[in-house]
Amino acid sequence: MFNFTYYTPTEVVFGKETEKETGRMVKKYGGTKVLIHYGGSSAKKSGLLDRIKASLEEAGIGFCELGGVVPNPHLELVYEGIELCKKEGVDFLLAVGGGSVIDSSKAIAYGLAEPDKDVWELYEHTRTAKACLPVASVLTIAAAGSEMSNSCVITKAADNSKRAYDDDLSRPKFAIMNPELTMTLPDYQTQSGCVDIMMHTMERYFTQGGNMEITDCIAEGLLRTVMKNAQILHKDPTNYEARAEVMWSSSLAHNGLTGCGNDGGDFASHMLEHEMGGMFDVTHGAGLAAVWPSWARYVYKNDLDRFVKYARNVMCVTAEGTDEEIALKGIEAMEEFYHSIDMPINMSELGIHPTEAQIEEMAERCVKATGGSQGSAKVLYKEDMINIYRMAL
Amino acid sequence: MFNFTYYTPTEVVFGKETEKETGRMVKKYGGTKVLIHYGGSSAKKSGLLDRIKASLEEAGIGFCELGGVVPNPHLELVYEGIELCKKEGVDFLLAVGGGSVIDSSKAIAYGLAEPDKDVWELYEHTRTAKACLPVASVLTIAAAGSEMSNSCVITKAADNSKRAYDDDLSRPKFAIMNPELTMTLPDYQTQSGCVDIMMHTMERYFTQGGNMEITDCIAEGLLRTVMKNAQILHKDPTNYEARAEVMWSSSLAHNGLTGCGNDGGDFASHMLEHEMGGMFDVTHGAGLAAVWPSWARYVYKNDLDRFVKYARNVMCVTAEGTDEEIALKGIEAMEEFYHSIDMPINMSELGIHPTEAQIEEMAERCVKATGGSQGSAKVLYKEDMINIYRMAL
Repeated sequence: MFNFTYYTPTEVVFGKETEKETGRMVKKYGGTKVLIHYGGSSAKKSGLLDRIKASLEEAGIGFCELGGVVPNPHLELVYEGIELCKKEGVDFLLAVGGGSVIDSSKAIAYGLAEPDKDVWELYEHTRTAKACLPVASVLTIAAAGSEMSNSCVITKAADNSKRAYDDDLSRPKFAIMNPELTMTLPDYQTQSGCVDIMMHTMERYFTQGGNMEITDCIAEGLLRTVMKNAQILHKDPTNYEARAEVMWSSSLAHNGLTGCGNDGGDFASHMLEHEMGGMFDVTHGAGLAAVWPSWARYVYKNDLDRFVKYARNVMCVTAEGTDEEIALKGIEAMEEFYHSIDMPINMSELGIHPTEAQIEEMAERCVKATGGSQGSAKVLYKEDMINIYRMAL
Repeated sequence: MFNFTYYTPTEVVFGKETEKETGRMVKKYGGTKVLIHYGGSSAKKSGLLDRIKASLEEAGIGFCELGGVVPNPHLELVYEGIELCKKEGVDFLLAVGGGSVIDSSKAIAYGLAEPDKDVWELYEHTRTAKACLPVASVLTIAAAGSEMSNSCVITKAADNSKRAYDDDLSRPKFAIMNPELTMTLPDYQTQSGCVDIMMHTMERYFTQGGNMEITDCIAEGLLRTVMKNAQILHKDPTNYEARAEVMWSSSLAHNGLTGCGNDGGDFASHMLEHEMGGMFDVTHGAGLAAVWPSWARYVYKNDLDRFVKYARNVMCVTAEGTDEEIALKGIEAMEEFYHSIDMPINMSELGIHPTEAQIEEMAERCVKATGGSQGSAKVLYKEDMINIYRMAL
């Protein structure tokens, strides 16, 4: 195994009606003027924003607001948020939403902390952040894990560049997680979220070395839990216990816990999907489901032991056979699972049909974003990326 | 399941030679003058203290030192540490050792933060802490989990009172965890540590409600991992991978992760053992092993589903039978495991033989310490405690 650091300072307040704690928590972490950042109108219509504002008022916290965050959140709104916060004297970013809203908030927080610099430079990796304003969230979608993670993905709409920046500076101060708030999500969003949660775990599971037994046990248990509860929610979307299992799993999948001791993870599927998301604006989790089976079939022989372990311990494959056969049965079982929750297993089912030229362009962008190659289970170069995109058509 | 909070801000630096990071980490968290607090002479003899001092000097951090912490650390040394730190202007507590040293450091840190008050009042629960100086550790024993926990147990030697105080204020800033540092521990210490780790998980597992599947999966995986690696270390004490699995498990078992969603846990075995430790100064983990089987047989009918789940998923009992039979087989399998690592399963094997009057006194003290009763799997009153002590003779 490899040396590692583990740092998850985010204070989680989990359970029913916990959004009422928002004001108290902002105060605890020193906020005096909050930007309430959110996406569409659902947070408004549901009354959630009003409950949060009431909680802030009760705690004597001032606020302003900015909605309009879209999936694959745009740099352009980040710039708008930075200007608004400067004008309003905001000192605390409160995201009300899922990963897109939290990521947009993190980007605004970076921008405010170093107001003389262009925040996009972080995502271009031409500099690293020196500071970041405090960020926190009231989570309404269980998926991205951004509520506890150091990650942040922003899309520059002008040229469809979707880029990630990871830094502990942006780890949120607190996360308010009321599973009830996720009950009204459309099933497609819920299931895309479950795929994203699983993929955050699987990206760290399929590596060429360093794995710890305790980390594997946690990862395998998390995957089994999410699969079981995703299927429950597919039929019974207001099942509180299942919503809670998935929501807590979303944080644990991406706060670092499922990667302790390994080599940093593979993350090739994520990088491949980022370019699909940048070009076609697909839902992230569904995009991951569409690319993973092809990635898995392309790389499994390079990481056979792990694929066999995954087949046995996660997908509960009990059949006998050669290691290759068991590994493939594990991949097939995952495809069956995706279908059971109406998730795609290729780009055609996802509803996108990139041309050969677009595949070439996505691979070129992916190579640029990854500095030339990506992956641990198997290191992928441009030609490999093209091959996987073609397999996933 | 129940609402919960989860808060583990401790930054973990895990792996080989990580003690060289001590100075950098103290500086990162604002320390300028450190008390190096430790136990016996092994940290000195092994050269560890010298390496830590070199790292502090390199970072420009001043230090003084205080050794002599014993298992079941004494209030009397805590007072001495507080006086020394006042005189030396210490602003950061660095524990070099295991749970006892970390707990002693936490108590000193509480005492320094409120210098006009008697720190023992916290352990008597006649007041709560308002502040605590920063604490961190270089861990040399995997057991107590104090390196990430909010717990702290101190013994007043004058009257054998062993008392706990839990408060997030004392969560350590960082923990440096080099598994190599635990390789020279006597086997009895190693195995006692493994029992303690397991018990921190099991205390949270056997409850009357609120359990989450994801939490159970983590707990069960952690228990299986520790059992397997305890047996490896029993034969091969310098196995790095096994030391690492046990060390990381020690933190995860007690940082809150294995209790998310439940009702706070049972902890009756811990409270029963605390009084044994207070009266006889036994090694904590071995004391837990000596009392758990009797506790389990006394309470299992009250929490039958959980005991069956434990038998199946942790002890891998595959036999058929009634729920009661399966539950008992799980308890027997745990006794066999304890014996396989030379741990006791009763007080006689532990080497203590309390008289009826001493049992009465331990139960009386336990009742006092718990405010009248303790437990979730089954709520225990004084008569129950006496019964369990008698069963465990």
